Amino acid sequence: MFKNTMPRYEILSEDAMASLETAWRRLMTEVGVEFMHDDALELFRQAGQKVVDNTVFLDPEFVLAQVAKAPREFDVQARNPANNVHIGGDFMAFSGVYGPPFVREGAVRRDAMMDDFRNFTKLAQGYDELDSAGGIICEPYDTPLDSRHLDMLLALQTLTDKVYMGNVVSGVNARDTIAMGEILFGGREAIEETPVSISLINCNSPLRWDDRMLESLLEYAKAGQPVVLTPFILMGAMSPVTIPAALVQQIVEALSGIALAQLIRPGTPVIFGSFLSNIDMQSGSPCFGTPESGIGLLCTGQIARRFGLPFRSGGGLTSAHQADAQAGYESLMTLMPTFLAGANWVMHSAGWLEGGLVAGYEKFVMDVELLQMLRAEFTPLEIDEASLAFDAHVEVGHGGHFLGAMHTMERFRTCFHRPFLSSSDNFDKWTRNGSLDTNERASVIYRKRLEEYEPPPMDDGIREELERYVIRRRAELGD
Amino acid sequence: MFKNTMPRYEILSEDAMASLETAWRRLMTEVGVEFMHDDALELFRQAGQKVVDNTVFLDPEFVLAQVAKAPREFDVQARNPANNVHIGGDFMAFSGVYGPPFVREGAVRRDAMMDDFRNFTKLAQGYDELDSAGGIICEPYDTPLDSRHLDMLLALQTLTDKVYMGNVVSGVNARDTIAMGEILFGGREAIEETPVSISLINCNSPLRWDDRMLESLLEYAKAGQPVVLTPFILMGAMSPVTIPAALVQQIVEALSGIALAQLIRPGTPVIFGSFLSNIDMQSGSPCFGTPESGIGLLCTGQIARRFGLPFRSGGGLTSAHQADAQAGYESLMTLMPTFLAGANWVMHSAGWLEGGLVAGYEKFVMDVELLQMLRAEFTPLEIDEASLAFDAHVEVGHGGHFLGAMHTMERFRTCFHRPFLSSSDNFDKWTRNGSLDTNERASVIYRKRLEEYEPPPMDDGIREELERYVIRRRAELGD
Repeated sequence: MFKNTMPRYEILSEDAMASLETAWRRLMTEVGVEFMHDDALELFRQAGQKVVDNTVFLDPEFVLAQVAKAPREFDVQARNPANNVHIGGDFMAFSGVYGPPFVREGAVRRDAMMDDFRNFTKLAQGYDELDSAGGIICEPYDTPLDSRHLDMLLALQTLTDKVYMGNVVSGVNARDTIAMGEILFGGREAIEETPVSISLINCNSPLRWDDRMLESLLEYAKAGQPVVLTPFILMGAMSPVTIPAALVQQIVEALSGIALAQLIRPGTPVIFGSFLSNIDMQSGSPCFGTPESGIGLLCTGQIARRFGLPFRSGGGLTSAHQADAQAGYESLMTLMPTFLAGANWVMHSAGWLEGGLVAGYEKFVMDVELLQMLRAEFTPLEIDEASLAFDAHVEVGHGGHFLGAMHTMERFRTCFHRPFLSSSDNFDKWTRNGSLDTNERASVIYRKRLEEYEPPPMDDGIREELERYVIRRRAELGD
Repeated sequence: MFKNTMPRYEILSEDAMASLETAWRRLMTEVGVEFMHDDALELFRQAGQKVVDNTVFLDPEFVLAQVAKAPREFDVQARNPANNVHIGGDFMAFSGVYGPPFVREGAVRRDAMMDDFRNFTKLAQGYDELDSAGGIICEPYDTPLDSRHLDMLLALQTLTDKVYMGNVVSGVNARDTIAMGEILFGGREAIEETPVSISLINCNSPLRWDDRMLESLLEYAKAGQPVVLTPFILMGAMSPVTIPAALVQQIVEALSGIALAQLIRPGTPVIFGSFLSNIDMQSGSPCFGTPESGIGLLCTGQIARRFGLPFRSGGGLTSAHQADAQAGYESLMTLMPTFLAGANWVMHSAGWLEGGLVAGYEKFVMDVELLQMLRAEFTPLEIDEASLAFDAHVEVGHGGHFLGAMHTMERFRTCFHRPFLSSSDNFDKWTRNGSLDTNERASVIYRKRLEEYEPPPMDDGIREELERYVIRRRAELGD
């Protein structure tokens, strides 16, 4: 796992933090949060919170007391223990794109299929930079709606041996996720001791948690499985247009969800979620990789640390339609602040295109390149006699070159990050190789990676039990 | 001008700074720096420094005493006073690409021509994000080598009313730059009082200043014109492969040049230069936008501030051949640290491609987009009652939207940065518009900008005097 021991870049002054604190306390108390599920309302009522219809008017001190029950850091197990992840502190875990109904390969944009889901899972398995393939990597159009979560889970559990995300479409799907986790990891007790999935609970921002998400939250929290409580905010639509207001709303939403998780089961591992960008105020389109989203991300990290909570951000977000220049700079405009802020759980780390509507094969490869670069960039310098290289200067002298110096010879294989997608070929060589742009080179790379895919070893008995579960449940669901 | 009042991102501990200090003092004292110009050697000798052949073994305390004579901040005047720049402190000034012999427009890569030089100058004039078109924006192949500096200067002085950079090919060229500055700004006294050009003095790293660069330095310093003393370091070739060693070398080179500038004329405005990246250790190709260059840039800012000097960095650097994904992310991989470090004079801010061999029209447009985004991102949040927007929450309530809220209506035109190149069009609209990638959209934009160019007003008498000077000097130079 990547441990980010570089300094955090924090841009909110203590005064600013105090203003945000006053504001979230007021919003929580006076406007409150809607929970569209009776069990949730009942839990808050029993805990002494004021509930009017579906709205809970929360006492900030009560909420902070709940938040304090959540672990500051926690582990999630993968079926290969070498791929276990630790959430929190300086650790950063990366998972693939989540949610797109479409896929892009080269110039073709089309409906996502189950084979695409499997392909992206395989790609994620093959790159060390990804700690998880994700969850709903894409929505496979060629599988029945009611049971596709089973197919997706089976693919995540068998084609990778990394951590995976749970399904949150309904309580039923959450229960299937948990049941399949029990099969893979040796029963309920084992997964309650160390959780085996991370699930994304999105808020219907502003200030409303919907019934299906809450159903899932209830299931996962009961089973001690981590949940990412994520305000889903496109400023201008789901929040006021000003960043401070969006940050305040984000705090209220995230903390209210986290408080509920703790009411369901004290100690439930939670992640302070953030999905914060803005719309284009002329067209209403969502925009990603924007300056506002970068600022929001930096602030979110600082805020989550103040509450002692691990936090989640987006990864390589962009509105671009393909892996072109805009995709390159917008993705980095999110990913660089992600590293500067030290996000603990990074979703959409690879493959996101077109505002999340498209999972892109070439984009996936490009994003892995960015992750490699940033991991190198956020590695502290080692400064010692050897790295200061005085002797190399004595050897080379004035106006010489260091290509053949002893200091260089000892280090040349590993001294610099070496890209696998970016080209520093000179013009002649680049032309001889077909004048390929980054997108075209990425196309060659992902195809080769898929050919080279090797399934991680798996116990046949467990695999068969998972397959039997999927067949049985699919029949029960009528598909 | 852009003032960057966000925090600086500093990654060197005090221990690290102390190690670098010990190391640069030792390197300066024991290995010394070569100066390939008798006047420079004589100045150091007279100042009591040990000179052996062309090598000056410098006393660190003497060097620091010279450095202390340089102004911490200074002004440079443009012929339109609204475009004057202030170098140092929180201010960041941006100039265009510098040096490429080739040009790219769309799929065509060809020799740069004087018309290209003029075009890039016009583009720089038209974008507020650029404080200067630069100097050698490209090397115009269709003009005679000995006198092309005159054509370039005339273009910079007449087609823009912004600050420009001086020519450094030789002392002769430097004198022409100064003479034309005197014509434009009203004589020697005027330009000595407030300088009118900034000139790039590159070190022949490692640890050697060449004769032509020193000739230029001598001329500019005598005239009180600012110089950027820039170690030119591709780690692995011009310095050891380790970043700490490169930083130490960079300090020794920059400070030795700065000390010389102060010996020539105490108080000469200087900029601590940095051009720091690495080569690919397999091919020997220069690489840009690398993690190592990003780290180097962050450290350089911290170091320059320790010496109380303004500093220079590169802007949108990339090895990419066109404005594709690699160009997008590599450029931002340099530009984001440029803002995080608060570089005061940013060269190659727009148009750089292919490791600096190519000035790209589309790339120019892409880089301006990045500059706009970063300027927005590095603008501090305003947190007050209005931006916290409590009333908007009361108005909208739970699960609603803010599109029509009063708070939104009052701010929607200016609340978010609005890109001019990036597209957030939905797939249908994007397809109807021709499915253009970023590079293709940039192509449309730069052509339109060139059509819309309007020359800034200029006194006819001065223009004619400049033209007469160019004609006379061209004849004298035999072209």
